Amino acid sequence: MMREQVLGIDIGGTNTKFGIVNKRGEILVSGGMATTGHNTPAEFVAALKSELGPLLQNHHISGVGIGAPNGNYYTGEIKFAPNLPWHGVIPMAALMQEALGVKTALTNDANAAAIGEMTYGAAKGMKDFILVTLGTGLGSGFVANGQLIYGSDGFAGELGHVIAVRDGRMCGCGRKGCLETYASATGIVRSAKEWLLASDNKSVLRHQQEITSESIHAAAMEGDNMALDLFAYTGKILGQTLADAIAITSPEAIIFFGGLANAGELLFSHVQRHMEENLLNIYQNKVSLIMSALPGSDAAILGASALAW
Amino acid sequence: MMREQVLGIDIGGTNTKFGIVNKRGEILVSGGMATTGHNTPAEFVAALKSELGPLLQNHHISGVGIGAPNGNYYTGEIKFAPNLPWHGVIPMAALMQEALGVKTALTNDANAAAIGEMTYGAAKGMKDFILVTLGTGLGSGFVANGQLIYGSDGFAGELGHVIAVRDGRMCGCGRKGCLETYASATGIVRSAKEWLLASDNKSVLRHQQEITSESIHAAAMEGDNMALDLFAYTGKILGQTLADAIAITSPEAIIFFGGLANAGELLFSHVQRHMEENLLNIYQNKVSLIMSALPGSDAAILGASALAW
Repeated sequence: MMREQVLGIDIGGTNTKFGIVNKRGEILVSGGMATTGHNTPAEFVAALKSELGPLLQNHHISGVGIGAPNGNYYTGEIKFAPNLPWHGVIPMAALMQEALGVKTALTNDANAAAIGEMTYGAAKGMKDFILVTLGTGLGSGFVANGQLIYGSDGFAGELGHVIAVRDGRMCGCGRKGCLETYASATGIVRSAKEWLLASDNKSVLRHQQEITSESIHAAAMEGDNMALDLFAYTGKILGQTLADAIAITSPEAIIFFGGLANAGELLFSHVQRHMEENLLNIYQNKVSLIMSALPGSDAAILGASALAW
Repeated sequence: MMREQVLGIDIGGTNTKFGIVNKRGEILVSGGMATTGHNTPAEFVAALKSELGPLLQNHHISGVGIGAPNGNYYTGEIKFAPNLPWHGVIPMAALMQEALGVKTALTNDANAAAIGEMTYGAAKGMKDFILVTLGTGLGSGFVANGQLIYGSDGFAGELGHVIAVRDGRMCGCGRKGCLETYASATGIVRSAKEWLLASDNKSVLRHQQEITSESIHAAAMEGDNMALDLFAYTGKILGQTLADAIAITSPEAIIFFGGLANAGELLFSHVQRHMEENLLNIYQNKVSLIMSALPGSDAAILGASALAW
């Protein structure tokens, strides 16, 4: 029994969370600390080791899994993550493995979430599915033949940077029309601001100091037409692009995770309709759209821990 | 040694070819017969068994692989193939296995070609690549983690039906803008006919009774500007769409096969340029575009045989 525990670590831009997890996906004990305030990755790892001390005295862990932005499974490195306090290439898996003396694997957040769903969540028993995180950006993990697709270099699964609208919106990556500029919390806010400027249609959004995906959600729940149309528009672009991804890997399900996914039917009724309308006939009425089964606040720890098995 | 031989069968709309192949990808003996002229699949299989008789007396085969249009690996069935003489669902792998008494696997032509390249050809040793056949249509096989992606239902890998141009050309599948309506032998001919109608630019194509991808190739080799532009246009659309597919599986190479691929640099200089221009930076200058290493006339037999190992 004691051997069947692993440590999951989720490194975020602001906070780092960790937990000891068993095979059933139960978090036995958890904690956290600030990611910021450490001058170097080595100092961060030393501080984390000290935080982990009590947990590791009481639990024998057989592996460590880390989820981190821009994490690469093959190299164990975090590469040029714009939202972390340290820049360049950070050999995070190696640093942690040296500090803790336990085999450590690392990947990016969306891949960790996909493995988490497969290990403990909505994708248990599935061999072919896509996980999509709808947060600030749009992340994705593709699973085929029961294995995560890392690709030749560990960077596969960037659905957020598939071109959804040719010559569309400018993306942070330097290109135009990437899916995540439309289908993400940031994307729907961007749509709202564009629409408010382009028309004088009435909307409660016009009177908000700061429009967020949550405030658009709230407005839609109150029947605000523009807010409802924003979800329809976002769902249309997401559904169209998913139809193309399905033609490549033919998944049995697409699992959604992240803040914007909380909009539920407001968004996914449109995703479903436009996905089906744009699917090649052999794929129609086969692909389920389902919500993550990982408990929201713990999902990142669970996803990271799943890597360690 | 005797055990290390398999039978590859390529079922085409007009002809069926077969050959006994060894581990090195050498065709020891081959033959063929008409696909047409048999009232039922069972009669076809009986005729094929009789043709194969002499080969199977002299060679002990350990498996049979079949490549066929609309072939499904999971079920061993050919489903609703528009170009075969028999319609509906044909349990071809089961029929053949019963007739020959040897374990038989079946998949579609493009998947067979991908496995052929991995077993004997340009993808030997590769774990992540895409095979694209540029023939009458555009077929594809995606390999990740060293395995072909069949998807949840055996129908993965339909890059030809990814929407390359939103609301673009009508496709035989009933939707608009599918990649294969542009990037295929049929697609480039369609572009030529559209352009000839839309302008009065001079071109030798204007005086051809029947425009084919080969006649466009020949015209381009003679410096005909419209023919050169047709390859540039076809290459642009193919390159853009490949950039999106790369963001999903991050292959180390894309391998091209089929008639239109013979155009070589006339086409692929443009594919390469537009692919790179449209790639997310992390994928740039990593993906090789390479031509099939399987000998043209035997490739279909080799691809089918590779399934049998």
